[in-house]
Amino acid sequence: MIDLVADLGEGFGAYRIGNDTELLDIVSSANIACGFHAGDPDIMNSTVAECVSRGVGIGAHPSFPDLRGFGRRAMDLSADEVRNDVLYQLGALSAFAAAHGRRVAHLAPHGRLGNLVAVRPDYASAVADAASRFDEDLIIVAQEGELARAARARGLRVAVVGIVDRAYQEDGTLVPRGTDGAVLHDARAIVDRTVRMVCEGKLRTVTGVDIDVEADTVLLHGDNEGAVELARLIRSELTSAGVSIAPLGEVLAAKHPVA
Amino acid sequence: MIDLVADLGEGFGAYRIGNDTELLDIVSSANIACGFHAGDPDIMNSTVAECVSRGVGIGAHPSFPDLRGFGRRAMDLSADEVRNDVLYQLGALSAFAAAHGRRVAHLAPHGRLGNLVAVRPDYASAVADAASRFDEDLIIVAQEGELARAARARGLRVAVVGIVDRAYQEDGTLVPRGTDGAVLHDARAIVDRTVRMVCEGKLRTVTGVDIDVEADTVLLHGDNEGAVELARLIRSELTSAGVSIAPLGEVLAAKHPVA
Amino acid sequence: MIDLVADLGEGFGAYRIGNDTELLDIVSSANIACGFHAGDPDIMNSTVAECVSRGVGIGAHPSFPDLRGFGRRAMDLSADEVRNDVLYQLGALSAFAAAHGRRVAHLAPHGRLGNLVAVRPDYASAVADAASRFDEDLIIVAQEGELARAARARGLRVAVVGIVDRAYQEDGTLVPRGTDGAVLHDARAIVDRTVRMVCEGKLRTVTGVDIDVEADTVLLHGDNEGAVELARLIRSELTSAGVSIAPLGEVLAAKHPVA
Amino acid sequence: MIDLVADLGEGFGAYRIGNDTELLDIVSSANIACGFHAGDPDIMNSTVAECVSRGVGIGAHPSFPDLRGFGRRAMDLSADEVRNDVLYQLGALSAFAAAHGRRVAHLAPHGRLGNLVAVRPDYASAVADAASRFDEDLIIVAQEGELARAARARGLRVAVVGIVDRAYQEDGTLVPRGTDGAVLHDARAIVDRTVRMVCEGKLRTVTGVDIDVEADTVLLHGDNEGAVELARLIRSELTSAGVSIAPLGEVLAAKHPVA
Repeated sequence: MIDLVADLGEGFGAYRIGNDTELLDIVSSANIACGFHAGDPDIMNSTVAECVSRGVGIGAHPSFPDLRGFGRRAMDLSADEVRNDVLYQLGALSAFAAAHGRRVAHLAPHGRLGNLVAVRPDYASAVADAASRFDEDLIIVAQEGELARAARARGLRVAVVGIVDRAYQEDGTLVPRGTDGAVLHDARAIVDRTVRMVCEGKLRTVTGVDIDVEADTVLLHGDNEGAVELARLIRSELTSAGVSIAPLGEVLAAKHPVA
Repeated sequence: MIDLVADLGEGFGAYRIGNDTELLDIVSSANIACGFHAGDPDIMNSTVAECVSRGVGIGAHPSFPDLRGFGRRAMDLSADEVRNDVLYQLGALSAFAAAHGRRVAHLAPHGRLGNLVAVRPDYASAVADAASRFDEDLIIVAQEGELARAARARGLRVAVVGIVDRAYQEDGTLVPRGTDGAVLHDARAIVDRTVRMVCEGKLRTVTGVDIDVEADTVLLHGDNEGAVELARLIRSELTSAGVSIAPLGEVLAAKHPVA
Repeated sequence: MIDLVADLGEGFGAYRIGNDTELLDIVSSANIACGFHAGDPDIMNSTVAECVSRGVGIGAHPSFPDLRGFGRRAMDLSADEVRNDVLYQLGALSAFAAAHGRRVAHLAPHGRLGNLVAVRPDYASAVADAASRFDEDLIIVAQEGELARAARARGLRVAVVGIVDRAYQEDGTLVPRGTDGAVLHDARAIVDRTVRMVCEGKLRTVTGVDIDVEADTVLLHGDNEGAVELARLIRSELTSAGVSIAPLGEVLAAKHPVA
Repeated sequence: MIDLVADLGEGFGAYRIGNDTELLDIVSSANIACGFHAGDPDIMNSTVAECVSRGVGIGAHPSFPDLRGFGRRAMDLSADEVRNDVLYQLGALSAFAAAHGRRVAHLAPHGRLGNLVAVRPDYASAVADAASRFDEDLIIVAQEGELARAARARGLRVAVVGIVDRAYQEDGTLVPRGTDGAVLHDARAIVDRTVRMVCEGKLRTVTGVDIDVEADTVLLHGDNEGAVELARLIRSELTSAGVSIAPLGEVLAAKHPVA
């Protein structure tokens, strides 16, 4: 069983980015923008409504407060500022979840904040604090790194995300963007690697070695028609391979059944 | 028993407005800015923390999205936009309440939005919808008018606010700002009128007639040292008159005990 | 001789709206967003650079400060606030024009502000004041109405804009949006009406009467491929009809040669 | 002859910071906030008007786009983004200067951007490019460092600013904040050091050595009544010592008379 997740609701006002309508039929969970890098109350409301009507899990996708930079520019915030900004965004999204009779299921930091929480212990603690003080049932979506560590230390559940269009190093971290071969482009290879990761728990690294990767969710993209097509293919091939697709909460519950 | 409420947390970044520290020792409830006309995540967090440590009730003070205009300029939003903006702000504040082990107790629209919900049924419904879908235990703070009506129609509790430094008309509405005598300035007269309103449920209108006003809370100000002094005086004279000061939830529970 | 103008540079950060690249090959003047409803410093710089390299006239397209509403929502600003907001945006754009060795040639208020300056004398005066105090050579692009009046009263040149996909009333104003037949959709009819307006100075109203319309510029759109196609067709048919296309400054100079 | 400069117009909307009214009677030049860390079009307009009526020189005080952080938090902007942000702010302020019949005389980057342009060649070039492309008569206010170098390389005039309440190192740079003794607090010592710097061109470093400092302007503060009092004292003692106080343009013209 695996979750498929994508960033959704990343428009603002009259602006739109991505192919939300198509992705909503493919994913089982959504990282929903909370107004700081993208998203506004109207878009958050309609995105949550779409998720609810399709049984897609609702996740918060908080960011540095930088709409113009789409959350991709680092900002020199204190850890307290990061914690408070994440609380604010978590809460804002939770109101739309509540208005539709649901709760926010997971938290996945966006963009540059997402990169930094993997390596900065202070930011990782700030985000984990925000999550655990807001709702101790919240699932943290992260790669292995500081945030995953900080979340587990607070008793939060962590869902490991597989980034199937990126090359991995032997220690399980990604080959940095900008390095040759960091981003995979061959759709067939990406699909095969995804099915293998989900079914066998193995991933071939950039050095040609197999490593164990226990992913709970796979990150999909919807930037263009090609990305949507790839996402569709990943879903259908996983299904053909007998893998069931379900929101994060179900995936984690199936893996770690309460005695 | 009466609640004393004031607008708090209305700074932004390096900016401060009001005398929050002084007011926090006087009021029993706070209308906390939620980032749209004032307030930012850091200020919201510290304001909520101060309220919790003093037993002051936490209320959301949502606004039109207009920091530069401090929420005082009308904006031509649709009712759906108003509803979604209020949900967003309510949720954002609730995260700080949750992080400190509390809930948002009440909702009181700010500034121009506050004026408009009293007279525009569409905006009143939008705000009441946001509140009831977010949390049906939420108390709506309003003067008599459209918002109070819409809130009661949804089964929400309404706390009527007495605006003791403003002149009233015989129908229980305020003499509009800009009219001669709309705003009262004599501290002694304001204190006396407050004590009478709370103890006897009577208020002398601008026309010299006594009307019944059943207030659950009294709005205080902290704009300057004079306002704080007046707020302090109101509290002490109410206490001297044997009135107990308590957060809105307690006031409403005392008035309407569950059988 | 006629100018063709379109709204350009209406993206923000990672967001894009419209087909700027295509339109830049069609128009002779550009209404460039100045950061309040759309546009940011990077987009303003690149849009101005593109205009300069193609000889397209640079115009400011100031708006109410409402990125989320794309400048389409009325805001209750004072006339002084409108004047100062327009000055700010005019100046900001002028810096990019200066950096590329050019000046802002014209001013055309955007969206809801654009609607309001046609009918509110206080806003019209505010915008005309901003323009005349900033640069008395600035051309004001407007339909007949309060802004055109206020601009002429200050000695500013006014360029009348023909809105060729909208139905006109007999007094030369547009049939209000929302009314049946207010917006024309037939491309052939729009092209023919444009050529007739430019060559003969006549336009058939919604009531079937011909009125005189002395347009200096024609407003084109680029929202979708159909709009761009129509814009292209308008340009080519005007050219075929022997009309030369030129920036506003040249059009006005040709019409009103200095003795 | 020396210029006295202070940061002015740093309010936003209903918020105010500093004692502008008092400072305006003391300084001969103003660093005016341009809306990115502080300042809005209304405040910019009134601040410029006050400067013009008192003969105070108008300077732009551009910042990173971070109102909530008051421009004190580093942001990972590209050099192009810095250049475009500075152009935008310069232009915006220039519109208010133009509306009052004046020009922007100088440019002094604010806060964290101001710190970074002293040490980052790419940001220094970006700011110097913006200035030189906007107006080659613009004076750059800077301490010795990358910005001063980049500005001189483009033929711009540089005005060296003396920071008289900060300790200097022997190479003419400031003792970093946070180091013991970095900030001077004794008013008498600050005044004496200022007079000596202006009259003799000498400043005693933190190590007790005298260095040459050829300052064209002295930075004053207005954060609180003590700061304003100190600013007043500096002005009066300089005047008593026979130094005339004049805007930057005059100071530079007197020092470097055109043959």
